[in-house]
Amino acid sequence: MIVEMRKGATQEEINEVVERAKSLNFGVQLNVGTDKVVVAILGSHTGQTPTDVFAVLPGVERVTRIMKPYKLASREFQPRDTLVNCGGVTIGDRRIVVIAGPCAVESEKQLRQAAEAVIRAGARILRGGAFKPRTSPFTFQGLQKKGLEILAAVREEYRIPVVTEVVNPQDVKLVASYADMLQIGSRNMQNFALLTAVGKSKHPAVLKRGFACTITEWLNAADYLLAEGNTQVVLCERGIRTFEDTVRFSLDISSVPVLKRNSHLPVIVDPSHAAGHYSLVPAIAKAAIAAGSDFLII
Amino acid sequence: MIVEMRKGATQEEINEVVERAKSLNFGVQLNVGTDKVVVAILGSHTGQTPTDVFAVLPGVERVTRIMKPYKLASREFQPRDTLVNCGGVTIGDRRIVVIAGPCAVESEKQLRQAAEAVIRAGARILRGGAFKPRTSPFTFQGLQKKGLEILAAVREEYRIPVVTEVVNPQDVKLVASYADMLQIGSRNMQNFALLTAVGKSKHPAVLKRGFACTITEWLNAADYLLAEGNTQVVLCERGIRTFEDTVRFSLDISSVPVLKRNSHLPVIVDPSHAAGHYSLVPAIAKAAIAAGSDFLII
Amino acid sequence: MIVEMRKGATQEEINEVVERAKSLNFGVQLNVGTDKVVVAILGSHTGQTPTDVFAVLPGVERVTRIMKPYKLASREFQPRDTLVNCGGVTIGDRRIVVIAGPCAVESEKQLRQAAEAVIRAGARILRGGAFKPRTSPFTFQGLQKKGLEILAAVREEYRIPVVTEVVNPQDVKLVASYADMLQIGSRNMQNFALLTAVGKSKHPAVLKRGFACTITEWLNAADYLLAEGNTQVVLCERGIRTFEDTVRFSLDISSVPVLKRNSHLPVIVDPSHAAGHYSLVPAIAKAAIAAGSDFLII
Amino acid sequence: MIVEMRKGATQEEINEVVERAKSLNFGVQLNVGTDKVVVAILGSHTGQTPTDVFAVLPGVERVTRIMKPYKLASREFQPRDTLVNCGGVTIGDRRIVVIAGPCAVESEKQLRQAAEAVIRAGARILRGGAFKPRTSPFTFQGLQKKGLEILAAVREEYRIPVVTEVVNPQDVKLVASYADMLQIGSRNMQNFALLTAVGKSKHPAVLKRGFACTITEWLNAADYLLAEGNTQVVLCERGIRTFEDTVRFSLDISSVPVLKRNSHLPVIVDPSHAAGHYSLVPAIAKAAIAAGSDFLII
Repeated sequence: MIVEMRKGATQEEINEVVERAKSLNFGVQLNVGTDKVVVAILGSHTGQTPTDVFAVLPGVERVTRIMKPYKLASREFQPRDTLVNCGGVTIGDRRIVVIAGPCAVESEKQLRQAAEAVIRAGARILRGGAFKPRTSPFTFQGLQKKGLEILAAVREEYRIPVVTEVVNPQDVKLVASYADMLQIGSRNMQNFALLTAVGKSKHPAVLKRGFACTITEWLNAADYLLAEGNTQVVLCERGIRTFEDTVRFSLDISSVPVLKRNSHLPVIVDPSHAAGHYSLVPAIAKAAIAAGSDFLII
Repeated sequence: MIVEMRKGATQEEINEVVERAKSLNFGVQLNVGTDKVVVAILGSHTGQTPTDVFAVLPGVERVTRIMKPYKLASREFQPRDTLVNCGGVTIGDRRIVVIAGPCAVESEKQLRQAAEAVIRAGARILRGGAFKPRTSPFTFQGLQKKGLEILAAVREEYRIPVVTEVVNPQDVKLVASYADMLQIGSRNMQNFALLTAVGKSKHPAVLKRGFACTITEWLNAADYLLAEGNTQVVLCERGIRTFEDTVRFSLDISSVPVLKRNSHLPVIVDPSHAAGHYSLVPAIAKAAIAAGSDFLII
Repeated sequence: MIVEMRKGATQEEINEVVERAKSLNFGVQLNVGTDKVVVAILGSHTGQTPTDVFAVLPGVERVTRIMKPYKLASREFQPRDTLVNCGGVTIGDRRIVVIAGPCAVESEKQLRQAAEAVIRAGARILRGGAFKPRTSPFTFQGLQKKGLEILAAVREEYRIPVVTEVVNPQDVKLVASYADMLQIGSRNMQNFALLTAVGKSKHPAVLKRGFACTITEWLNAADYLLAEGNTQVVLCERGIRTFEDTVRFSLDISSVPVLKRNSHLPVIVDPSHAAGHYSLVPAIAKAAIAAGSDFLII
Repeated sequence: MIVEMRKGATQEEINEVVERAKSLNFGVQLNVGTDKVVVAILGSHTGQTPTDVFAVLPGVERVTRIMKPYKLASREFQPRDTLVNCGGVTIGDRRIVVIAGPCAVESEKQLRQAAEAVIRAGARILRGGAFKPRTSPFTFQGLQKKGLEILAAVREEYRIPVVTEVVNPQDVKLVASYADMLQIGSRNMQNFALLTAVGKSKHPAVLKRGFACTITEWLNAADYLLAEGNTQVVLCERGIRTFEDTVRFSLDISSVPVLKRNSHLPVIVDPSHAAGHYSLVPAIAKAAIAAGSDFLII
């Protein structure tokens, strides 16, 4: 349920709405806009509560129900676009930002070369994996802490923000201390313990789409981050699993306008992961931008 | 197997290749370019025949095997782009052609209004369904012959080429006598009897992708048309069936660059069919053009 | 809409219902049971017609709407199980019938050997393809008419019913004159011209599931056969297209109880086609029987 | 790579193989059978090492490569079936074991009633969720620690082993101290941090299939558990995501024989989760048993 306060509603009036919600065992999330405040009333039993319970309170303009299963990620809760600040680079203000870098950090030399190439090509953010979620336990799992140190050194040297993946709730603090943005990988999109930990960190985060998850499930997962008070969330479309076998994953281009319509979060696209072959990347990248995405991860 | 003749090879030399092929029970298809001729040797047993059988013949430059299951639709057989002529409008020469019109022809008045709107909006080809393949037998199946007559009248009046669907091999001649281009629908992509009939007609044709068919199966289906000597074939991506439920079908944007790389046939995209909601069409249409498609069907 | 007549309703009363339906431009289908008659009122505009239009007529017991998109294939229209007679063998009476034979008829000798093996193993119906729907035009398309003659000869000699595929509406009569049951293949499940032709023939038919079609679409396709008055229809589950790659198609075992609950038509399972490897066939075949299917095609 | 030692090879000979592997930076896993020992040589670079490196050592009978990406879960590594002991109940010895219980533990009273019903119906193991991985953060997340205590009390009172889900690597020790078997849910199948933690615990575990993961990815995930020395692993098929919409998930019945052929781990099936409707459960459960699964979770 969304409680929109009148322009100029007092802090006292807002507090009364919050207290009423808490007395009914609901959670509460505030969206403080430039001229008015919106209060989200959260909980699985909101459907059984009449909207009048809040509509009669002083300072309330309107109470509406969010019919979608996701709440905080929805445009109903927040009509204006979210802007995410990744180490000084803004994502979501309609300028295309490119993020690039190697899949895994292998050595300082390799990452330095990558950073130079990336900056020369116009990308604004460097990415590189220190913790790698591999399908088999017998393949290289990333340099881990050593990889984070290399990332931090290159970030310092080239003055470029870095993004890297986190795979364990216990590592969130550690990774956040080295990186400007945390990446939650496709296989962890519904790892709710990890989402909660990244939410609590309030660190900017990229939430990649689970390769077989619907857009609704994806925005529900974003709600896990937002519910902990982390508003710095970027969504990354990276392709879905289908029967087509000329590509590794089928990029779901429709997800870009669907997300833009239903959510306020920035949307980025990872064309290289989906394509699985470099020759297809330019066409898919151009399509992603044409469809309205905010930036690209390559 | 592809037999490339030398520049200036004589007709006699070409004939000898063709006869050698026929003596081995192979089919043969010629691609006569501006400066050389390529002969495709076709049949399921080409793999057991050594390339030398043809390489030793006079006038032969090179013999190579096509490793892909589709042959005539492949870039190996024909490196240059195919241009398709639909009632005077060329498809495939890198200019964007828009084709638009109602799903089903309902009356002369309706189609006339549609034609006017379509022309005003800059579309170059009119579409409209007379025979409709419906999932249930109890829904409107189209005006059939009456619909074709309406199409023909409007085509005459507005001097705009028309495209319409054909669903039965027996109707191919009839439909071709009224329309500039035949459409083979998604559900008929592997209706090989229909493909063969449309191939024999040599009439320009749009082959829509089966909603759960791979690109390889699609190009194999195109081979059915090409094998009958019909070179006027356009491929239409219209979305594939996936688990995502905010759209009717997920447009497979990667298919555009994959087809452009592997085939010489023009590629068009049908964004409205896939989206299932008009508000998504502009974003998907722009993405389709950015990805390199030749025209749009809306 | 379903109009159930009272026990002992007169022919005149039934006629009146039929005429009322026709006067409203509806189609009509009768299901004459041992003690009462049910009339299906068919058409896309039944939703706009009040049930009272029929409920007030003499001899009418009850009028109900079929909420499912398929009508004639539904249990609402016909509660009792349909029995299909394939050359003297009954399908659908809870006894397991096995149908077996080679994918393609290659020669009289081959089919004779197959028939002997099949009979020895206890199968009751012989199958073999004369017209083969191949994904590529350059592979063997079946012996066609010659294949039908071989089938008929072996059927005569071994006194075993035969089933074979039909792929072109024009061939239905020809194939029906040689075979006891017509097979509509997976790729033709939504070839509505073929369905209509097989429906008109009133010949027993097996309708294989489209490899990416839902159960609802499948029962809609069955309605095309039933709407032409052909009640001898068997449904065949043969696996659906998924992402899993250790099998060719994933057998959808749940479809058996779903079909048994929602439809009166017999359900058979083709485990070998789905598995793509002979070692998996016994386990899948046993599972199919345990799930309640009526017979197997191997 | 698999190094099979001769019958009666000495401990010294085995040690030498292990040391040779370690000196080459490989991991090692031993499978000690009743009459011989098999040593798995693990690492992403085994492909570059000639088998002779091990074949020449004393006591070695044969060295073979495992071509599959998963190693420890494969039949090549361990030909005999694994038996898993869940609180005194053996899973994997061809007797059907039924595990049943409520999705979420809600109260002691509810679980006690469930336990009684479950025991009366013949089930041998009780299940119940204390930590629930929910798609939305605003729905009930389970009683957590309180739920575990209820489970433990009921286990004590009714002397029935219990299985419950774990969702966070940090909770593994806690949950293992209350439950006889740990469940790893579908959404966590590729949560490698959780897999590693459960592997290290050496506690019996059920690994549910990711709803869009291939069998190969699933067995790779099992390798994460086995690589930490946890041999008590059970695989649970619970349905995959497809386009079919009459069921929540399509049970992949073929996975049972595929797993039985390629792996030594017990296979169980969860028919109720897949069906999404109770009326389909009996048919699917019977099919699962007929296909060869070891037990059922309902």
